[in-house]
Amino acid sequence: MIGRQIVLAARPEGEPKESDFALVETEVPTPGPGEILVRALYVSVDPYQRGRMSEARSYAKSVALGEVMTSQTVGEVVESDDDRFDPGDVVVGQLGWQEYAVARGSALRRVPPSVPPTLALGVLGATGLTAYFGLFEVGRPVPGDTVVVSGAAGAVGQVVGQLARLAGCRTVGIAGGPDKLADLTGEYGYDVGIDYKADDVNGALKAACPDGVDVYFDNVGGELSDLVLRRLALHARVVVCGQVSQYNNQTPELGPRLLGLLIVHRARIEGFLVTDYAPRFGEAIPRLAAWLAAGKLRYREDVTDGLENAPRAFIGMLRGENRGKALVRVAEPG
Amino acid sequence: MIGRQIVLAARPEGEPKESDFALVETEVPTPGPGEILVRALYVSVDPYQRGRMSEARSYAKSVALGEVMTSQTVGEVVESDDDRFDPGDVVVGQLGWQEYAVARGSALRRVPPSVPPTLALGVLGATGLTAYFGLFEVGRPVPGDTVVVSGAAGAVGQVVGQLARLAGCRTVGIAGGPDKLADLTGEYGYDVGIDYKADDVNGALKAACPDGVDVYFDNVGGELSDLVLRRLALHARVVVCGQVSQYNNQTPELGPRLLGLLIVHRARIEGFLVTDYAPRFGEAIPRLAAWLAAGKLRYREDVTDGLENAPRAFIGMLRGENRGKALVRVAEPG
Repeated sequence: MIGRQIVLAARPEGEPKESDFALVETEVPTPGPGEILVRALYVSVDPYQRGRMSEARSYAKSVALGEVMTSQTVGEVVESDDDRFDPGDVVVGQLGWQEYAVARGSALRRVPPSVPPTLALGVLGATGLTAYFGLFEVGRPVPGDTVVVSGAAGAVGQVVGQLARLAGCRTVGIAGGPDKLADLTGEYGYDVGIDYKADDVNGALKAACPDGVDVYFDNVGGELSDLVLRRLALHARVVVCGQVSQYNNQTPELGPRLLGLLIVHRARIEGFLVTDYAPRFGEAIPRLAAWLAAGKLRYREDVTDGLENAPRAFIGMLRGENRGKALVRVAEPG
Repeated sequence: MIGRQIVLAARPEGEPKESDFALVETEVPTPGPGEILVRALYVSVDPYQRGRMSEARSYAKSVALGEVMTSQTVGEVVESDDDRFDPGDVVVGQLGWQEYAVARGSALRRVPPSVPPTLALGVLGATGLTAYFGLFEVGRPVPGDTVVVSGAAGAVGQVVGQLARLAGCRTVGIAGGPDKLADLTGEYGYDVGIDYKADDVNGALKAACPDGVDVYFDNVGGELSDLVLRRLALHARVVVCGQVSQYNNQTPELGPRLLGLLIVHRARIEGFLVTDYAPRFGEAIPRLAAWLAAGKLRYREDVTDGLENAPRAFIGMLRGENRGKALVRVAEPG
């Protein structure tokens, strides 16, 4: 059997181009003892994948040239030599941008039939879990806090705002463009939305956060974050989830040295990775599912059709063109 | 009675000059009900005072033009209308660069006769407490950690290295010049000393921290800190105690944006102020005193004679010319 894959064809310099990827057809491996063959339904498109395309040392190994692009994938079990999985089961795992993948059971998580498969990549998957553990474990919001989120209409940001609201916080979301701005207060319940492309961000932040920023959940970095950091409240917590504005830089961009502000405000800036919380995913997913079922957690998905279009969806996502969680539909459930 | 004071004469632009200060003689106020008249023995010279000379918003009010320069002072009680203090008692408090000050008892801490007065400004005073709470509460070292200290031969840094060693850590100190370098390993027990003026700091750090930096206690900031931040270990803690390299800047210096490294290393950067730990000083001082008595805590003091020379001592300290805790002797015990 032949399957299609998107592999890394070249290491991007700056912004990735479609020619940095290649669509290839390869023989699908036969699953060995204890292995499972999965047919992809949807693959995920996320900012961290830009880091894996680079050779710079990071928390995970780079994708090698010619190797399948890494991604979370939700798919259907086709064959299984593991008693825990049966053909037809829907599973999620780090299976990459490809139609078929072979994995061990320990690398897969089952998605219950009641859950729409795309949610296993979004609110009930890596992005929802990122929001949950980043906000609650690193940001530690308490009722009355003002929580500012950058990339607030993105896959993670849309969830963070709603979780902060559930925690009794005032929420201020920053995103780019009129559609996302409308979503911030309309769909995601932010108390205040700021359009960084159109608004005087500094003035808007000042007006929205008269007592300063208690928690800043940062997906973006760069100049936008400089403005927020200058408005920290006493004992503020800055959650560094992503720095998407910086990912295409070949060398670090220069910005003002602001660490002295951490003394003034006795504040903390902390980075995290959702994978470190894997042993606790089972604690978070039922809560997220319950909020979803109760209508307390809303989301948007931005679905691109066809595996061959994953590079384009990815490049657009890095530019902020997606409205909600970016996904690529590879196949219909069989 | 007439007393001498050093007042702020002008707001410095960049590095302070002696002409930014003025020596004035004023009538010493008569202590009112509940008040205490203190004659200064030593006044302290510390980097944070540079911030108080500026009008920029910070954690404490600026010194006004014509106002006495703020400082910690150790002195003798001359008159007391507070039962807790008697003439001849040695006390410490934020009394400023002046020969005589009037204060309420709540603003003073008694120094036991067994303690040399200068220690109440150093190892057993604000700088020792800064090292203690910054390292143990913010840095949270555990045995086996590699702890890097910038400004490692300064008032705070010399104590941090020894406390980290007591906590079972490997210690790497960074300071400038051959005298301080000799003190790092000779006096303060650092495992490795690095001279940032003479050494290849990056290469020296790489050699000294083969498994990365678990705790970075930063007194300096700037390019030196960039080098350390690029060597953080997983779950590293960066304690922002001071940023003395930046204090003379009129606007923030530009440096590489490195917050993405916090994600890679799941690391934390946190600022603190020793004054926030005031309710717990009574827990730390006896421990510091016991280590001192046991010969486990060594220190240097850099004493300048004469209140009139406080501005010169201060300017020299900002340039890193002091070897140990900078102090100014105002008078001999009477």
